[in-house]
Amino acid sequence: MKHLSVNHLLGIEALNNDDIDLIFHMTDSFKEVLNRPIKKVPTLRDVTVANLFFESSTRTKVSFELAEKRLSADLVNFSSSLSSLSKGETLIDTANNILAMKVDMIVLRHPNPGAAEFLSKHVNSIIINAGDGTHEHPTQALLDAYSIREKLGSIKNKKVLIVGDIKHSRVALSNILCLKKMGAIVRVCGPSTLMPKFLHKMGVEISFNLQESIDWCDVANILRIQLERQKLKFFPSNREYAMLFGINEDILKNRINDILLMHPGPINRGVEVTSDIIDSSQSIVLNQVENGVAIRMAVLYLLAAKIRTR
Amino acid sequence: MKHLSVNHLLGIEALNNDDIDLIFHMTDSFKEVLNRPIKKVPTLRDVTVANLFFESSTRTKVSFELAEKRLSADLVNFSSSLSSLSKGETLIDTANNILAMKVDMIVLRHPNPGAAEFLSKHVNSIIINAGDGTHEHPTQALLDAYSIREKLGSIKNKKVLIVGDIKHSRVALSNILCLKKMGAIVRVCGPSTLMPKFLHKMGVEISFNLQESIDWCDVANILRIQLERQKLKFFPSNREYAMLFGINEDILKNRINDILLMHPGPINRGVEVTSDIIDSSQSIVLNQVENGVAIRMAVLYLLAAKIRTR
Amino acid sequence: MKHLSVNHLLGIEALNNDDIDLIFHMTDSFKEVLNRPIKKVPTLRDVTVANLFFESSTRTKVSFELAEKRLSADLVNFSSSLSSLSKGETLIDTANNILAMKVDMIVLRHPNPGAAEFLSKHVNSIIINAGDGTHEHPTQALLDAYSIREKLGSIKNKKVLIVGDIKHSRVALSNILCLKKMGAIVRVCGPSTLMPKFLHKMGVEISFNLQESIDWCDVANILRIQLERQKLKFFPSNREYAMLFGINEDILKNRINDILLMHPGPINRGVEVTSDIIDSSQSIVLNQVENGVAIRMAVLYLLAAKIRTR
Repeated sequence: MKHLSVNHLLGIEALNNDDIDLIFHMTDSFKEVLNRPIKKVPTLRDVTVANLFFESSTRTKVSFELAEKRLSADLVNFSSSLSSLSKGETLIDTANNILAMKVDMIVLRHPNPGAAEFLSKHVNSIIINAGDGTHEHPTQALLDAYSIREKLGSIKNKKVLIVGDIKHSRVALSNILCLKKMGAIVRVCGPSTLMPKFLHKMGVEISFNLQESIDWCDVANILRIQLERQKLKFFPSNREYAMLFGINEDILKNRINDILLMHPGPINRGVEVTSDIIDSSQSIVLNQVENGVAIRMAVLYLLAAKIRTR
Repeated sequence: MKHLSVNHLLGIEALNNDDIDLIFHMTDSFKEVLNRPIKKVPTLRDVTVANLFFESSTRTKVSFELAEKRLSADLVNFSSSLSSLSKGETLIDTANNILAMKVDMIVLRHPNPGAAEFLSKHVNSIIINAGDGTHEHPTQALLDAYSIREKLGSIKNKKVLIVGDIKHSRVALSNILCLKKMGAIVRVCGPSTLMPKFLHKMGVEISFNLQESIDWCDVANILRIQLERQKLKFFPSNREYAMLFGINEDILKNRINDILLMHPGPINRGVEVTSDIIDSSQSIVLNQVENGVAIRMAVLYLLAAKIRTR
Repeated sequence: MKHLSVNHLLGIEALNNDDIDLIFHMTDSFKEVLNRPIKKVPTLRDVTVANLFFESSTRTKVSFELAEKRLSADLVNFSSSLSSLSKGETLIDTANNILAMKVDMIVLRHPNPGAAEFLSKHVNSIIINAGDGTHEHPTQALLDAYSIREKLGSIKNKKVLIVGDIKHSRVALSNILCLKKMGAIVRVCGPSTLMPKFLHKMGVEISFNLQESIDWCDVANILRIQLERQKLKFFPSNREYAMLFGINEDILKNRINDILLMHPGPINRGVEVTSDIIDSSQSIVLNQVENGVAIRMAVLYLLAAKIRTR
């Protein structure tokens, strides 16, 4: 069996192309499992996974939980708001306590950028980053790339547009890293106040012209406007954002049948995209969600193989 | 095998008498399972159920969870307060996301009347209504009717009194619909401010005389005073309510051995009923709870059969 | 098979020495199970356990949950803050409702001292006390004593020092009771404002001299400073506490290789103990956590045997 080059999934940055190919290959198998009547395999019945969520999350948590259950892993949930965390115990102490209870892997969602990498260096376990602040969200990027590949055959040379709040989005950063590795041409478009400075160094095109960008791309990944991540107001109102950067029938007038529309969810209907567009046949939002469970099964499976070799 | 005439359990209104008989027949079998040493059957091991609770609940949620586990279904919990819901994602989007993760059935508790029916029309899944605002709570009505039948042999022509806040109670509405279908004579009694207007059209007797009603009935179903559902104050104080509509030893003086007392819980002891009365041998409160798990197993089992025929 | 002399685990007080020996003997077996590749036995597959937590808890709850899962018990979680509890239903009603759903055992965490014993007298079930206010925390004391025995061979005549807030600590009380039963010499040390009055009657030495006590003991169990249990301020500041009663390199200067350091967690690093000391080779904090799961498996297993004999 082939193995990943990494012992953790901390971000897309550390993966090489063979790793991504291997994950996608396993995802194909697990997607087939998910479409059987009995959607469960005994593969990880000797593995215990702890889901440590220090930030509220529903869809990512449910997706990981279902991935773990489909693989027959034992799982334990540990949710905590940051406020209760700040009352005392360190992240390392929390993790070491749970690991001492014979837990093999940790799925970590944490508000601090770098939390997953930090933990991987200080505890003896396998860490999967389920989102670390504004840094990375690698399983989201993998499921997005897998979903594009599934629809378009390959990712190489495909033109992918990411629209919205690039600056505060871990989805944007992980997507850019993953798509660039796989040979896509990546462009971002959004308000200038929501555009980070480092982008040109990543080989990403930057545009402030949504119409021209929509006409250019094969795929548009529409980010959620996350008011909760903005400490200041970066645009005047949801309505103004919708007028300038919202995706609607008018902006898609030239592209009505040959563009792929994606969204990581949850969707603010009428803000970053209109209802008719996100419900249209061009939208692959629900394929993304379905593939998310299979991607997470693949990642859990491939990293669990590392337990025996430690 | 016989099948239900419906594809969802949205309310008692849509059920016919054969449906109710079939549910009760299956409940008999599952009640027998629950009294075995190993209280579990592999029946739904190929079914995944999501419990979507948008309103805090403990007993109904635990009862559904145990019913799912006893049937070996996989289950995933999704709890959310309405406030976080109102931040963005629509109910349909939330449900479709969870369904895309290969979930087969949704158990929905929601504060909005009609939420379950609305969802059943807009997503491709099987919906079980676990309470939709002040509208219906069908599994509660089924377990109540089953509990009466178990004790009195049948429901036909039995005189059932429902006491308390009829207006804000989904338990009252579902109970009235179920008992009327099964041939009971139903009377309600409570403060006039807590009495809805449509009742006479449902063939329900209305009384404001608790003593006379208690002397008349075979069964008294005592509703919980739910201050949280009252936007205005409909009676001056708990103490005044207890004096006028509370069930106590004095009001039961003529009926001490031949009345059946029910309560959907949680009980406000000393408000709608005194402690000595609800703990007496006339009370079947804990039989209701036990039957609740078996009723929910029957409903889950019978609706799961619809998955294969879709 | 040998049996416990008790039908519940309400506190260490009710256990005799044969009970403790039996629990430790079973813990040895379950610890071996936890170190197998498949850390699971089918022993309690016919048992359903409800975890009733009326006080926030993470580590104790996760430890019980994992113990239940490793034994293949079915489990149901019921968490509630005291505020929601005070809205209405009594503890007995809540418990009886859950028991009516065919639950066999209750693990109870409650803020009121005596809650577990009270419940054991009023409901027909097996109760395990997972902490009742400032009263007892018996599984913690058992895992602490087991961890000492594991490292030092036996407990008889060992000198055990408990440092910190003795007055508000259920860990301290349960530890004192357990260690005294097993023949240890127990001393407590802490600020005089945090010292309860009854201690001399329990045969415990009291000291306010930390240096002398540290030089005297074989084992130092360092309690967490629990500001949340102090209604008044019993010492001026965390910093002052650390200066007077914190364990650090300086105070351990004579004992650097021959003392065992324990802490029930979560640790306030820099307050009751410095980071370098609690991370040193003298610390058995993570052994305590590991043994906690095995101790809880043993308690669940031995009490489950009582279900069949009721």
